[in-house]
Amino acid sequence: RVARILQRLDEVQIAAQLDNTPPDAQDRILKMLSVERRAAVFAELREETAAELVRRLAPEEVAVLLDDLEADDVADILGRVEETRLRQILTRLDPEDADEVEQLLGYDENTAGGIMSLDFIRVYDTVTVAEATRVVQEEEDPPDQAFYVYVVDDDERLVGVVSLRMLLTSRRDDPIREIMEPELVYVDREADQEEVADVAMRYDLVAVPVVDDQRRLVGVVTIDDIVDVIREEATEDILKMAGAGEELFETRSFWTSLRARMPWLLAAAIGGVLVAAALSGFEGALETVPVLALFMPVIAGMGGNVGTQSSTIVVRGLAVGYVESASLGRLVFRETGLGMALGALYGLLIALVAPFIGARVPDPLALGAVLTLGMMGSMTIAAAVGTSIPLLMNRLKIDPAVSTGPFVTTAVDILGLMFYFWLATVLLGVEA
Amino acid sequence: RVARILQRLDEVQIAAQLDNTPPDAQDRILKMLSVERRAAVFAELREETAAELVRRLAPEEVAVLLDDLEADDVADILGRVEETRLRQILTRLDPEDADEVEQLLGYDENTAGGIMSLDFIRVYDTVTVAEATRVVQEEEDPPDQAFYVYVVDDDERLVGVVSLRMLLTSRRDDPIREIMEPELVYVDREADQEEVADVAMRYDLVAVPVVDDQRRLVGVVTIDDIVDVIREEATEDILKMAGAGEELFETRSFWTSLRARMPWLLAAAIGGVLVAAALSGFEGALETVPVLALFMPVIAGMGGNVGTQSSTIVVRGLAVGYVESASLGRLVFRETGLGMALGALYGLLIALVAPFIGARVPDPLALGAVLTLGMMGSMTIAAAVGTSIPLLMNRLKIDPAVSTGPFVTTAVDILGLMFYFWLATVLLGVEA
Ligand SMILES: [Mg+2]
Ligand SMILES: [Mg+2]
Ligand SMILES: [Mg+2]
Ligand SMILES: [Mg+2]
Ligand SMILES: [Mg+2]
Ligand SMILES: [Mg+2]
Ligand SMILES: [Mg+2]
Ligand SMILES: [Mg+2]
Ligand SMILES: [Mg+2]
Ligand SMILES: [Mg+2]
Ligand SMILES: [Mg+2]
Ligand SMILES: [Mg+2]
Ligand SMILES: [Mg+2]
Repeated sequence: RVARILQRLDEVQIAAQLDNTPPDAQDRILKMLSVERRAAVFAELREETAAELVRRLAPEEVAVLLDDLEADDVADILGRVEETRLRQILTRLDPEDADEVEQLLGYDENTAGGIMSLDFIRVYDTVTVAEATRVVQEEEDPPDQAFYVYVVDDDERLVGVVSLRMLLTSRRDDPIREIMEPELVYVDREADQEEVADVAMRYDLVAVPVVDDQRRLVGVVTIDDIVDVIREEATEDILKMAGAGEELFETRSFWTSLRARMPWLLAAAIGGVLVAAALSGFEGALETVPVLALFMPVIAGMGGNVGTQSSTIVVRGLAVGYVESASLGRLVFRETGLGMALGALYGLLIALVAPFIGARVPDPLALGAVLTLGMMGSMTIAAAVGTSIPLLMNRLKIDPAVSTGPFVTTAVDILGLMFYFWLATVLLGVEA
Repeated sequence: RVARILQRLDEVQIAAQLDNTPPDAQDRILKMLSVERRAAVFAELREETAAELVRRLAPEEVAVLLDDLEADDVADILGRVEETRLRQILTRLDPEDADEVEQLLGYDENTAGGIMSLDFIRVYDTVTVAEATRVVQEEEDPPDQAFYVYVVDDDERLVGVVSLRMLLTSRRDDPIREIMEPELVYVDREADQEEVADVAMRYDLVAVPVVDDQRRLVGVVTIDDIVDVIREEATEDILKMAGAGEELFETRSFWTSLRARMPWLLAAAIGGVLVAAALSGFEGALETVPVLALFMPVIAGMGGNVGTQSSTIVVRGLAVGYVESASLGRLVFRETGLGMALGALYGLLIALVAPFIGARVPDPLALGAVLTLGMMGSMTIAAAVGTSIPLLMNRLKIDPAVSTGPFVTTAVDILGLMFYFWLATVLLGVEA
């Protein structure tokens, strides 16, 4: 029955299924496929799934599966595998391919070098359209994504780019120099992959050329890999903001998941101890008016919510270039104002229902004032802190997505709740 | 001085600057540019910035700026403008362009129809390579992103696709039917834009053909627009999870921002009132052992943190196809186990420092047990709720990114803190 289903699906669909299948079932399904089909399916697997397979299978089998892939994809997969296994596999690959893979593995995986392909079409700037066309025609192993021909001078320096459409529509004896677009958009090998993605998005490119420090063309980042980067970076930011690691893959096993989450939660736990210590000065007030404790969760929680909103906006705004570095002051000001306005609104709302909650409510007017002003204080502080911390981290070149959370929560709990209890001692006339 | 800077920047760079510039400065800078350059810069602006300009400028001026854009981009911009203004502008466009724009505006902006381009190269399946090449050469207004030629039968039904590279490398009298790739990958006009992006990513396509219910080719979604969708959808999910709206643009003004955030915060405030009401049964315990209140923020906060981690993983996992629908039970089980383990760890940690905080600590061993078990309870509940709610919402076809937050926080505060206080009454032997 499975065999019949496999028949009906294409390689991409089978790979999508395998990505979410436990290892033993993966192996069983792969065994049911012909050798060619198995390699084709392997080529479409998620990087992490492929890497796990590479760790599990014999190096000979792996070499067969990797043979059809482009060097950059092989490097992505093997970059996730231990050194000794990597060596075993590399010696079994075609020596030329192995060389390319090793070269690519030399780059940080999050840079242009780490995601570029070595497989692109290049002509010298002295050729004609007919000669360039012949180069395209004679390419034995054309890249999957071949839409442009890159033009270099005799020092291999990038000087221009010609789309295949231009090649197809120009006269055969036109010099390539005349029809090429002088190439001004390129990235350095060391450029961060996010920068590469930004360039591709801004200029609507399907491939970004990569150059070395002499502006010599060394590779091309193609749009399929850029698309993966965009999704990967968004996932990374989302998980980091929640302190849940950097890759969804880490969330698959109990132990990697535990390890990924512990640091952030430790920071939050230490923050919680500080909060308890800070509030311990108000034990007297709590004893006299225990109803104050009932509203601690909403005072702190609403602050936390607004703080998270502010920091989310800043973190995402920075990631997609939406935050105006010219007007950071205005941003902080607007967010803080929002926190205050929302605090007044919801503080009043809580104050109105408070007299109906709890057995021993003191003067409801005074309690209402404590709750309204306390909520305003907590939400104002939260918005200010939530906006400023990621902006500050960004200024200090720390990833603003990382660990804004515990800082904001702790700051809001300490400052917001201390303000709330201080208000209570003043307005309700109780001893701290 | 500004003029000199403008000279040095290309259109894309100027547009990137304008996107983050206040309106009056935008107008001043645009006035400094030549008519052609102004249109070129306009073409590179963010959709929302362009729409704001369209609202501000005279319809005649707008028509000039829009003239160079492709119909799909015009539709995206005009889709954000009021009906009367839209009509004023459409009548000033070239009638053929206006027709195309109106046709595109008929589609939901988040569907394949809403992001597709009407500008693509199409040949009949009876032509030869030479004839198809002539069609490419004679295209007067070639699309910006022309990498494929689509092949249709005489009912206009999509039957295949040929890359320009194939066209360039095939013999001139080969029938197109023989070199084309029979096209199996396409999307329906009504398909959600996220589905289009998934197809493009999985198959590594730079363009996805769009068909009607007769499989007739009606448009093509190009990769530049797909890339925008991927980023846009990630932003939407991030903001929704924080209850901060759906678009970063909404966060730019005080009032739209206020309106975007109010509903989510209202839900949280109502939750907070429920929490206060639920805890009011424990006023007696609070009066006897006020130190219990000092640890409320850390018990509730750590629960909230773990709950957010779980729901973040589920929401993002669902968005990028990482959550195995076959093993949802295992996912809930693993997350709940993680919550319990982390709760035991950090509960013990808090219990160890608790005796040093607060003036009137009761039996430190019993208090330690309350804190450890309370933290375990809170974090276990939080992980279970944080995992289940988005999975449930997804099952009910509600966007899981939306408003998981307040539900999780409220549930954790109520269940977690009630459990904590109940433990206190039992283990410390105090009256509720
Ligand atoms: Mg990578
Ligand atoms: Mg790589
Ligand atoms: Mg773009
Ligand atoms: Mg690929
Ligand atoms: Mg590649
Ligand atoms: Mg990164
Ligand atoms: Mg990042
Ligand atoms: Mg759109
Ligand atoms: Mg559109
Ligand atoms: Mg891909
Ligand atoms: Mg377009
Ligand atoms: Mg959507
Ligand atoms: Mg969505």
